[in-house]
Amino acid sequence: MERDHIRAGRLSEDRSADIASFLSSMDADRWIAEADLLVDIAHVTMLVEREILDKEEAQGMMRILLDFVEKGVPAEAFDIRYEDIHAGIEACLIRAAGEESGGRLHMGRSRNDEVATCIRMRLREEVIGLMGELAGLRDVLLDLAAVHQETIMPGFTHMQHAQPTTLSHHLLAFEAAFTRDFERLRHAFSRINQSPLGAAAFASTGFPIDREMTAKLLGFAGVEGNTMDAVSARDFLLEAIADCSILMTHASRCCEELIVWSSGLVQFVELPDAFCSTSSIMPQKKNPDTAEIMRGKAGTVYGSLVAALATMKGLPMSYNRDLQEVTPNLWKAISEARSSIRLLSGMYAGARFNRERMREESGRGYSTATDLADFLVREYRIPFRTAHTIVGRAVKKGGINLMMLERAALEVKGISLVDMGLTEDMIRNALDPVHAVAMRRGPGGPSPEAVRSSVKERRRLVRRDMAWLEGIRHSLSETKASLLRKAKEMLS
Amino acid sequence: MERDHIRAGRLSEDRSADIASFLSSMDADRWIAEADLLVDIAHVTMLVEREILDKEEAQGMMRILLDFVEKGVPAEAFDIRYEDIHAGIEACLIRAAGEESGGRLHMGRSRNDEVATCIRMRLREEVIGLMGELAGLRDVLLDLAAVHQETIMPGFTHMQHAQPTTLSHHLLAFEAAFTRDFERLRHAFSRINQSPLGAAAFASTGFPIDREMTAKLLGFAGVEGNTMDAVSARDFLLEAIADCSILMTHASRCCEELIVWSSGLVQFVELPDAFCSTSSIMPQKKNPDTAEIMRGKAGTVYGSLVAALATMKGLPMSYNRDLQEVTPNLWKAISEARSSIRLLSGMYAGARFNRERMREESGRGYSTATDLADFLVREYRIPFRTAHTIVGRAVKKGGINLMMLERAALEVKGISLVDMGLTEDMIRNALDPVHAVAMRRGPGGPSPEAVRSSVKERRRLVRRDMAWLEGIRHSLSETKASLLRKAKEMLS
Amino acid sequence: MERDHIRAGRLSEDRSADIASFLSSMDADRWIAEADLLVDIAHVTMLVEREILDKEEAQGMMRILLDFVEKGVPAEAFDIRYEDIHAGIEACLIRAAGEESGGRLHMGRSRNDEVATCIRMRLREEVIGLMGELAGLRDVLLDLAAVHQETIMPGFTHMQHAQPTTLSHHLLAFEAAFTRDFERLRHAFSRINQSPLGAAAFASTGFPIDREMTAKLLGFAGVEGNTMDAVSARDFLLEAIADCSILMTHASRCCEELIVWSSGLVQFVELPDAFCSTSSIMPQKKNPDTAEIMRGKAGTVYGSLVAALATMKGLPMSYNRDLQEVTPNLWKAISEARSSIRLLSGMYAGARFNRERMREESGRGYSTATDLADFLVREYRIPFRTAHTIVGRAVKKGGINLMMLERAALEVKGISLVDMGLTEDMIRNALDPVHAVAMRRGPGGPSPEAVRSSVKERRRLVRRDMAWLEGIRHSLSETKASLLRKAKEMLS
Amino acid sequence: MERDHIRAGRLSEDRSADIASFLSSMDADRWIAEADLLVDIAHVTMLVEREILDKEEAQGMMRILLDFVEKGVPAEAFDIRYEDIHAGIEACLIRAAGEESGGRLHMGRSRNDEVATCIRMRLREEVIGLMGELAGLRDVLLDLAAVHQETIMPGFTHMQHAQPTTLSHHLLAFEAAFTRDFERLRHAFSRINQSPLGAAAFASTGFPIDREMTAKLLGFAGVEGNTMDAVSARDFLLEAIADCSILMTHASRCCEELIVWSSGLVQFVELPDAFCSTSSIMPQKKNPDTAEIMRGKAGTVYGSLVAALATMKGLPMSYNRDLQEVTPNLWKAISEARSSIRLLSGMYAGARFNRERMREESGRGYSTATDLADFLVREYRIPFRTAHTIVGRAVKKGGINLMMLERAALEVKGISLVDMGLTEDMIRNALDPVHAVAMRRGPGGPSPEAVRSSVKERRRLVRRDMAWLEGIRHSLSETKASLLRKAKEMLS
Repeated sequence: MERDHIRAGRLSEDRSADIASFLSSMDADRWIAEADLLVDIAHVTMLVEREILDKEEAQGMMRILLDFVEKGVPAEAFDIRYEDIHAGIEACLIRAAGEESGGRLHMGRSRNDEVATCIRMRLREEVIGLMGELAGLRDVLLDLAAVHQETIMPGFTHMQHAQPTTLSHHLLAFEAAFTRDFERLRHAFSRINQSPLGAAAFASTGFPIDREMTAKLLGFAGVEGNTMDAVSARDFLLEAIADCSILMTHASRCCEELIVWSSGLVQFVELPDAFCSTSSIMPQKKNPDTAEIMRGKAGTVYGSLVAALATMKGLPMSYNRDLQEVTPNLWKAISEARSSIRLLSGMYAGARFNRERMREESGRGYSTATDLADFLVREYRIPFRTAHTIVGRAVKKGGINLMMLERAALEVKGISLVDMGLTEDMIRNALDPVHAVAMRRGPGGPSPEAVRSSVKERRRLVRRDMAWLEGIRHSLSETKASLLRKAKEMLS
Repeated sequence: MERDHIRAGRLSEDRSADIASFLSSMDADRWIAEADLLVDIAHVTMLVEREILDKEEAQGMMRILLDFVEKGVPAEAFDIRYEDIHAGIEACLIRAAGEESGGRLHMGRSRNDEVATCIRMRLREEVIGLMGELAGLRDVLLDLAAVHQETIMPGFTHMQHAQPTTLSHHLLAFEAAFTRDFERLRHAFSRINQSPLGAAAFASTGFPIDREMTAKLLGFAGVEGNTMDAVSARDFLLEAIADCSILMTHASRCCEELIVWSSGLVQFVELPDAFCSTSSIMPQKKNPDTAEIMRGKAGTVYGSLVAALATMKGLPMSYNRDLQEVTPNLWKAISEARSSIRLLSGMYAGARFNRERMREESGRGYSTATDLADFLVREYRIPFRTAHTIVGRAVKKGGINLMMLERAALEVKGISLVDMGLTEDMIRNALDPVHAVAMRRGPGGPSPEAVRSSVKERRRLVRRDMAWLEGIRHSLSETKASLLRKAKEMLS
Repeated sequence: MERDHIRAGRLSEDRSADIASFLSSMDADRWIAEADLLVDIAHVTMLVEREILDKEEAQGMMRILLDFVEKGVPAEAFDIRYEDIHAGIEACLIRAAGEESGGRLHMGRSRNDEVATCIRMRLREEVIGLMGELAGLRDVLLDLAAVHQETIMPGFTHMQHAQPTTLSHHLLAFEAAFTRDFERLRHAFSRINQSPLGAAAFASTGFPIDREMTAKLLGFAGVEGNTMDAVSARDFLLEAIADCSILMTHASRCCEELIVWSSGLVQFVELPDAFCSTSSIMPQKKNPDTAEIMRGKAGTVYGSLVAALATMKGLPMSYNRDLQEVTPNLWKAISEARSSIRLLSGMYAGARFNRERMREESGRGYSTATDLADFLVREYRIPFRTAHTIVGRAVKKGGINLMMLERAALEVKGISLVDMGLTEDMIRNALDPVHAVAMRRGPGGPSPEAVRSSVKERRRLVRRDMAWLEGIRHSLSETKASLLRKAKEMLS
Repeated sequence: MERDHIRAGRLSEDRSADIASFLSSMDADRWIAEADLLVDIAHVTMLVEREILDKEEAQGMMRILLDFVEKGVPAEAFDIRYEDIHAGIEACLIRAAGEESGGRLHMGRSRNDEVATCIRMRLREEVIGLMGELAGLRDVLLDLAAVHQETIMPGFTHMQHAQPTTLSHHLLAFEAAFTRDFERLRHAFSRINQSPLGAAAFASTGFPIDREMTAKLLGFAGVEGNTMDAVSARDFLLEAIADCSILMTHASRCCEELIVWSSGLVQFVELPDAFCSTSSIMPQKKNPDTAEIMRGKAGTVYGSLVAALATMKGLPMSYNRDLQEVTPNLWKAISEARSSIRLLSGMYAGARFNRERMREESGRGYSTATDLADFLVREYRIPFRTAHTIVGRAVKKGGINLMMLERAALEVKGISLVDMGLTEDMIRNALDPVHAVAMRRGPGGPSPEAVRSSVKERRRLVRRDMAWLEGIRHSLSETKASLLRKAKEMLS
């Protein structure tokens, strides 16, 4: 590194390695180095189109920029003695293209709008990637839900056996949650994909630049209008981390359950070996490490959210360097979210659910007592609360059978269920888990009939969402190709 | 309170006041008591329509429910010895209507779907209220932006004088941020306004209820399909708190600035007395207390977000009582956000901005040095980086004047600006703040011309958003009136 | 309320109810109202002793202050139109004692030092209370640990059966954690119990007050020296919330376990009815609600910590009104922590542990495989890693018996364990959980012998800590009595 | 890497790079690799001393371990395909020393106690380092406080001019806060410096190991008794992060102030160039970037705290893999805290405070009005509240002079101050900032006399603390040397 072109003018003292490392954003800048090249290219293209630069002035640096795109950002641009990658790339460019051409790159803009633009470009890619992982996970869950439409299992509330349901119903619950996570990101995407470029330091510029043009060249859906807001706002980023936090909550809930279910105490599922570890001392152990670490990653992502919010909290207008400290939290959050969702898909796809254990537990703990109460309500038009109290009393007294129910009904209400016609057979039938589940055939419910129709409907939605993603991906890659084409044409 | 109808059956031991108070959600339930009545009425209406209940069985409780709506939820329903308001209202209802009718209320549902429905109903009202406050604040900011189109002020980066701008431009930056906050809530609203009713405990019910019908009667846009997800999901709530956290970040940034600007060191603004306090010992003080407390409220809302996320994090399916501890954070966050935005509007509306002080500071600190560099670029086609270095060198050597610039240009580049034709007059003109601002006339920029057009465009947007809000408000109030009408018809 | 004596002088505009409610700290001030009276009394006592006030000037207000102490702070002092309780009490005092005497109360001090003093006084009480609850919980855990010295149970890692241990050992693990929580609070107490009184607004006062004297009258261990630090520092409060957060982590871990253990899937424990709830629809349920809500309260306390930290983060010197928004988080955190620990004691004390189920599970899942590996190491001096691999291989191939081990040893290492003398009996013995536990007799280990000695040692520590608490409590109550005695003497 | 000795036995499937990277703790393990070697050496030494291993069996691996200490942990041990550094080092050791010796390393312990021991060893070093930085910062602040004992400046509350003080007083306020941070770490250190070694997986071991001996060999002050607690507790770590969060709050407050003070609007301080940056577009800027980023780092550290707490929250006993995700937050928090405090020292040491600007502002804004009120109280025995109201009224009416005060006194109280003898001269004197500051000579106050004595006293404390640190450092380095000596003796 020869010298820092930016500092050169104003500041005298050299900076210690200690300070340079404290101030440097280079680690996080690896995320945006490639985007920075495209921003440079789009900016120069626009300057020439708007006749702010002559084609001749621009050619020198455009040649180098295209070279960097092809061969990758030169390693030297990441030298920690540059404040950031923008300074690093500009310095490399000036060295390669000469100041006469390269020194014209930064006119009509500032690092403030530049960095905001780069973050949004990389973030939109990451968000699309994350949405892709989510769509994939939904697909895996739907595959399993299709297989397990008749797999009876106990549903839990408060971790107590509550009512029987189907594994399909259970998995569809998570699928629904991840679908909302997908929707949230789609909404966030609409706020991310706006171009701040041309806002310069915050006051825009006196050069007659064309913000719409650079926005279009870079594939943005529009321009983030007010130029002060454009450089100082990071709510698009806070929203993305918040969305990651919420979806990690869902992932963490899945993991908690997989951990409990794969415990020797429960044995509802066996996770694939590849996602598990053993112990250094207990040779028999098969530990659900991936699920545990993913549960921990939820905490990590919350931490990123808090860090970002707390850092933004009291900042006056417009750009403050604190903003630099916010961005690494974004990359941390979104990369943890992406790998978590991807691995969660793998864990589900490879999991073996133990139908026997589930079936065995589904009748336990009076989990169909509600169905019996409902039966009494339907059959004898006993008020629900009364029926509930009668069944509850019977449970407390020792169990559900004709005699206990008869005694309970007499005590609670002074009525005789036997006289009304209740028989042991009717009780047994009402208590049968398979029967209880089959009764629940309304939309969204657990019966095989209901989940079959849900799987079909949800499959349609995930296909639609995947098509939407494909459209965005295609459009962004076309835009990039077109930009590079334009840039090459300028060289001739 | 006579007895807890719900506990009556199963549990023997009495509960100490200590435990009752620990478990009770009554404080937070005040937020949803009224919604609970409407849910009860809609549920009963549907049960009759679907012939699950006879009209005769329903009339007794419907009469009481309508009575509660008219006179308010009876105080006794809030007795802490009931676990929650749902149990409280049901108990009051049974006492008033008799178990033969009132005891039929709870069939085909559970407190799990009931509470989720109530939270969503109250939350959608609150979100609409908050969006109303945001629209109001945007309007106030636009009023001020219209007044201050020619008020020159220094723009800051790193709290250092950076470049001159207009107060209008500055205020429009905040208006843009609050508009995105509005948008975010509109997106969140679409996820909130879905009905979980009919999911019962999580497994739906064997009664042939009609979820679409209750959703419609209560004004929901649709049904939250999967019934396990419907009772255990709280991401709609996390999203609302996250959105409040992000908008409070914006409010806190406004406050930070108002505090600094009203400091005796700055004197850019004088806040209205009503929003300030004095000291108990220093009689001369006028302190920006409202702004300080609002800055603190941002921290409070972040706390609510963390509490809610951390509580949700590791919960397995389906309902767990931890969820009860999540909701108060929602009410806290949204009510702090609402009052903050409302008071922020008042503070801005009553603030007196000191044009003289702003004007005075706008030329300070070489804040138009960039404009001079840009001038050199434009006039003599010097590369931007070179011009920047020359001007920076001159500043460092002692100041911007023809002699210093000439020396700097010779040192840096070996060129003579004087030979090129640069004069003191040209320098003075390039450095003039008013001129510098007027140059920045691109869309979103600070020039009077640009901000005039921005104000007009943004005004259009806020009008559109207010109309949208009005539409929703009207529709919800019509729905409620229609529901009560239907309920009264049943009594005849 | 007649008028606000503090605002009277400087500010003209009346304040709307909206603003008054936003700015008011009255809700939180209920925590410190009583402390404020004692601070007033100590301050006046010192003013007279140091001859800054005449006894005659002081008598009027002292009579009223003592009256307030006896009858309670007048309700009117909490009127929300006063900014805070300090203004409220002073206004009530002036009205009752006349301005000639009451108007002298506030000389030589400010609300800034007053509120800091009150918070510390109430907080030290609360911390002592919380330490008392912790000592009580430790005692309960030791009682149980004494009973269950021979109760064999499976120890878990990753929620998988790992190695057998004793319930006593398990409970002592929690007891150790809560002991460190106790220690942490003891250390925090030393920083809380320092007097900021006399710092006035931050610059102390020109009156020759005696800070040591008021500190002593109020039972503080010393004076918080620097007066600017004394009014603006809240790290003592952040530390207290952080300590609550850490101990709630421990409480939450206990609750997670009790919830899992009381699940129908596990059945290691039955919680007392008083701490549980039933379902509104499933009459058979017994849900561990107290444990679930307590797990949620941990999240709530973390939220308080984040709110307090984020609010403090960027405040310049010295007092800023944001500090007011910090304190409610303290009261929230510490009261949730106190009630949680108290109820946790009750839950453990009333819990019935199911020795049969624990014993049954303790041999499952090859949980003594390590012991077998260790046996091979000891008996045949096989390297540990080799023995571990051999046993692990046997498990993977189908199970632990002589034949499988022999094959594994041959494959892994080419050795014959049979030739070395290994028999089925030796294997069976090494795998016996009771034997495995009994072997672990080192200090801190799980064997009955080891836990017996641990219980004894820990009992000694909790007794010591209880005595320390009793000493502090006694000393504070003596100090208060003595202060009131002095005050009464002044009236004569 | 040949094979994973730990996984070898039990698990069949190979692990994808994706999963390996998700599960790996290698990045964070760089912090503890060296500690791990010392733990290995101490463990083997103890095994031989207790005759669990023969000297001959141990020599092979001890030779290699000493070799690793000398040459550094081999790069291969960090291969991500090992789960962690413990597995990596053991594998390298076995390869170098042969399984016959190296395979004996892991007997009587587990990675669970190993990692907990390593974390504590590294953390105690880091805490001592951080305490060293804090002591250095206090020293710098005391140096400045000594220089600026007579530098009059305005003290602020609510960012409004409040009362004059001295810069020395102001700096001593921060020094006091950082001293408490030092104390907090000293208390945390006592909980960190306890040895978990020998707890094995959690149930200790059947081998007759000596936990006291390894604790002593590694320089721990004692043994963390209960073995289940020893491996599953991380409260020592949460406490350390909480302490870092609190001290970063202080650092952030310093930075906020330095940023405001170095603003062109205030100009109280000029920060050293080395800690500042310039703009890429505004050549005149000198931005306080280090202070801004440090303010942001406070947010980062809070994020680490939240991540760690949320991850720990619901974990049942004993070891869960989630714990792995907690530790990186510790290293992040403590390294950010260390570099922040170190750089803050440098920023203060190189700052030039502008005495003229401070003096100029110290009389502004009626900042001595309280002193005038106090004068009226002292001189004419007017009640404080009355005097405060009179002066406040005068300010509101237009200013403090004899005429305005006279009118205010008549209106407020019907008294004539002129008749009592008040003159313009007396007013002027009471209002003089230098006089006002000189009056505040009580301990901890701002007068030159008071701060001189404070500086002296605080200097004594920082010297004492530095000596304490030196003692700890010396003792730890002696212990290490002695351990290596013992190990070498075993080779002969």
